[in-house]
Amino acid sequence: MEARMMRELDAIFNPHSVAVIGAREVDGFSTSLSGTKLKENLFLVNPKHHELLGRKCYPSILDIKEDIDYVIIEVPAVVIPRVLEDCIKKKVKAAHIFSSGFSETGLAERVNLEDEVKKLAKGKIRLIGPNCMGIHHAKSGLAFSPGAPAEEGSIGVISQSGTFADAFLDLGRIRNINFSKVVSYGNGIDLDCPDFLEYLAQDGETTAIALYIEGTRDGARLKSALRKAAKRKPVIALKGGVTGHGSRAAASHTGSLAGSPQVWRAFFKQAGVVQVETFDELTNTILAVSHSPLPSGKGVSLITNSGGFSVMETDMCVKAGLEVPQFTKKTLRELRKIVPLAGTGINNPLDAWPLYYNPTVLRDTIKAIARDGNIHSLVLHIDEMKYWVQVLGEATEDTLKEILPLMVEGCVYTRDEINKPVMVCVALEAYSQDEKDRKYHLMVKREFESRGFPVYPTLEGTIKTLFNLYRYRRRASPR
Amino acid sequence: MEARMMRELDAIFNPHSVAVIGAREVDGFSTSLSGTKLKENLFLVNPKHHELLGRKCYPSILDIKEDIDYVIIEVPAVVIPRVLEDCIKKKVKAAHIFSSGFSETGLAERVNLEDEVKKLAKGKIRLIGPNCMGIHHAKSGLAFSPGAPAEEGSIGVISQSGTFADAFLDLGRIRNINFSKVVSYGNGIDLDCPDFLEYLAQDGETTAIALYIEGTRDGARLKSALRKAAKRKPVIALKGGVTGHGSRAAASHTGSLAGSPQVWRAFFKQAGVVQVETFDELTNTILAVSHSPLPSGKGVSLITNSGGFSVMETDMCVKAGLEVPQFTKKTLRELRKIVPLAGTGINNPLDAWPLYYNPTVLRDTIKAIARDGNIHSLVLHIDEMKYWVQVLGEATEDTLKEILPLMVEGCVYTRDEINKPVMVCVALEAYSQDEKDRKYHLMVKREFESRGFPVYPTLEGTIKTLFNLYRYRRRASPR
Repeated sequence: MEARMMRELDAIFNPHSVAVIGAREVDGFSTSLSGTKLKENLFLVNPKHHELLGRKCYPSILDIKEDIDYVIIEVPAVVIPRVLEDCIKKKVKAAHIFSSGFSETGLAERVNLEDEVKKLAKGKIRLIGPNCMGIHHAKSGLAFSPGAPAEEGSIGVISQSGTFADAFLDLGRIRNINFSKVVSYGNGIDLDCPDFLEYLAQDGETTAIALYIEGTRDGARLKSALRKAAKRKPVIALKGGVTGHGSRAAASHTGSLAGSPQVWRAFFKQAGVVQVETFDELTNTILAVSHSPLPSGKGVSLITNSGGFSVMETDMCVKAGLEVPQFTKKTLRELRKIVPLAGTGINNPLDAWPLYYNPTVLRDTIKAIARDGNIHSLVLHIDEMKYWVQVLGEATEDTLKEILPLMVEGCVYTRDEINKPVMVCVALEAYSQDEKDRKYHLMVKREFESRGFPVYPTLEGTIKTLFNLYRYRRRASPR
Repeated sequence: MEARMMRELDAIFNPHSVAVIGAREVDGFSTSLSGTKLKENLFLVNPKHHELLGRKCYPSILDIKEDIDYVIIEVPAVVIPRVLEDCIKKKVKAAHIFSSGFSETGLAERVNLEDEVKKLAKGKIRLIGPNCMGIHHAKSGLAFSPGAPAEEGSIGVISQSGTFADAFLDLGRIRNINFSKVVSYGNGIDLDCPDFLEYLAQDGETTAIALYIEGTRDGARLKSALRKAAKRKPVIALKGGVTGHGSRAAASHTGSLAGSPQVWRAFFKQAGVVQVETFDELTNTILAVSHSPLPSGKGVSLITNSGGFSVMETDMCVKAGLEVPQFTKKTLRELRKIVPLAGTGINNPLDAWPLYYNPTVLRDTIKAIARDGNIHSLVLHIDEMKYWVQVLGEATEDTLKEILPLMVEGCVYTRDEINKPVMVCVALEAYSQDEKDRKYHLMVKREFESRGFPVYPTLEGTIKTLFNLYRYRRRASPR
């Protein structure tokens, strides 16, 4: 990215002053921005109000005395040319157009309206959108989601879909993901996906990039931007509209031309980007690449408390493209010394519920497995809460506080001393209403998260994600 | 199944009296059975105790005066031959051996011990197990899971794995699945999978069967039992150990020979059984087949509040093997009359957040789509809670109470008048700690459940399950 464009985007992501044009009483943008560090540098505009959210409300942006760097426009599409002219007059640097009602409708008059807006802005004001959520940047105070985390993080998100950008921010709080910059760019008639990719590739705050894209106007430029970004940091991409019906849906969502799935698959592969298939997989994988070393091979060790699940997990690994090899003889000798397993054999997968009651042994088992030459990563499946409660009753919480640090110690050793990834699955049913059980699950989850491990609620998600880590290391093609 | 065997199994599932041999203070069996209708027909045996759980504890089963029909044995494996001899002396009809430590260890002496137990019992007492959880039958009071639902239902479960049988019962409460009979049979050295299949096939209480199996000793008999069962009711099967490494894990779990994945796939297909790939898919699918009419074709209509998710859902449908066809002209004319959508076009998928604020229109939209000849099933994605709370604030709960009955009315019409399946996705993050948001999600879930609709927490699960419904109707092979 040329230096001028980099500076221009830097200014857009770091405005000194922001105005919301079309602010209303119930308004996600005004509410979100009111809570950030923008403070007196936020201005609301709407001729119908004198005051909103305890702030003065201006009839027009031209009535604001202060300079305005960045505006968010949420007035009906047909009014936007007039509003944009005011913004240009006011020398606003960039406008984010939230409003929909442009080319994505498929209506000729709306395609023309989009063209008119584009021409009007050209060379005078940069545009984000229309039909999108715009920018979240905790550091500068730009925000679009009232409950979004205020913490500054290192994950960059570029999403054609507003819902996904918003869902990412929601998930951030739930899944321990913090963001450097999040952009939803919708129809992308001026600033488009490649611009944001090039910017985030060079951005010092961003260590990994999650991308949701439905289509592009300029495949060659997108590819070059993807390749440049993927050379510098992990880029995980979800392509919406990969199927015929899906691309019809994408056209009416963001007006995108979608291209065939084969073309896109090759496209991402050549660019060194890891393509994923669902939004869950996208968030799971970005969590992993930003929290974990990479596996140097396919060999996984599974530690679990259930025979049935140990069989399922093994199948999942092998179907995903991983392996569950036997331990070396050296490891077996070592394990036989430390593990007091009666019925259960010492094998990989290790179906070892008694270990969940003997944390020192569990810690030493994890450490011994970590050193095994056949093993390149470890999946720890923790689903013993129900049985802990049955066996330990009221003592469960105190016991957990004793057990957890030792389990974590084994995992920290694996990750930090041996440099192998540890994926933790704390299996929890979304609809569970057993509040005690939920509490213990969340205790375990938070303990591992606080030590920087990626934690997943489903086994399938855990293992798919581990395979994606492996793919990222190999820059392999999608399955 | 011959009538004698049917009567024998009927007696096993409906014992008048049950003894737990090896009862302890912390003991899932004794605790579970104490809470059921067995009451004074439950006897605890352990020479180390005089009393347990407020009940008399007998030194040996021979010290009990009353007749005993059924025993649960949870003493160490090596003691079992002696305990079994007592049971035979006592004329017990069937023994469930919970204890592990037999052929699944791979140790020669334990394989011999299993043989000894088998020979000892032959013709004298029927065996369930060893290495399993045994039987849950709410109607008779047999139980193995302390928190299992006491409601009698219609789903039969046969599981080689004890954890999965137990997990099914846990999920029952969470996911609105009620069970006729649940059996975990472990190593299956006497009564085996085909016996239970033939029994549940003829069982009047059971309308659908979920099966988890790792391997078999008699493929021909299993196939014949599967075929007979699948002719009478839906059979959904999960095969554990389908991969090379997975089958090694299965061998050490239940001592099973697993066979190649191709063989099993053909096996299930020929028997008319729908094979699934994960435990989640098994529970999701059994929920659907027991709660829904079957789709007469591949055409799905998707109603959602998000453009991004509408694209993803469409891709998911098409990848799964379904279609998201355009509405007929008649439906489009009808929808244009009733739907006040501005930006959003009227298409399938219907990306229609404004409808979630206009329940009468949403109801009528659902009804119009239900009548469309291109559409064979409907997926309703309800993920508007966050926005409802943003827009409606404190009024959310009251608004939900207004909106929900109208949404449900449209779905009931679709299912009961038009006979097309409606799958409801109430998307909820497992780790979410926003308690208000969880509460509204669960309100919506329960409302649809109470009207008999299958409800799913993830879009992917919803759509995979819908495809399995279609496969069941077509008795198609696995993907």
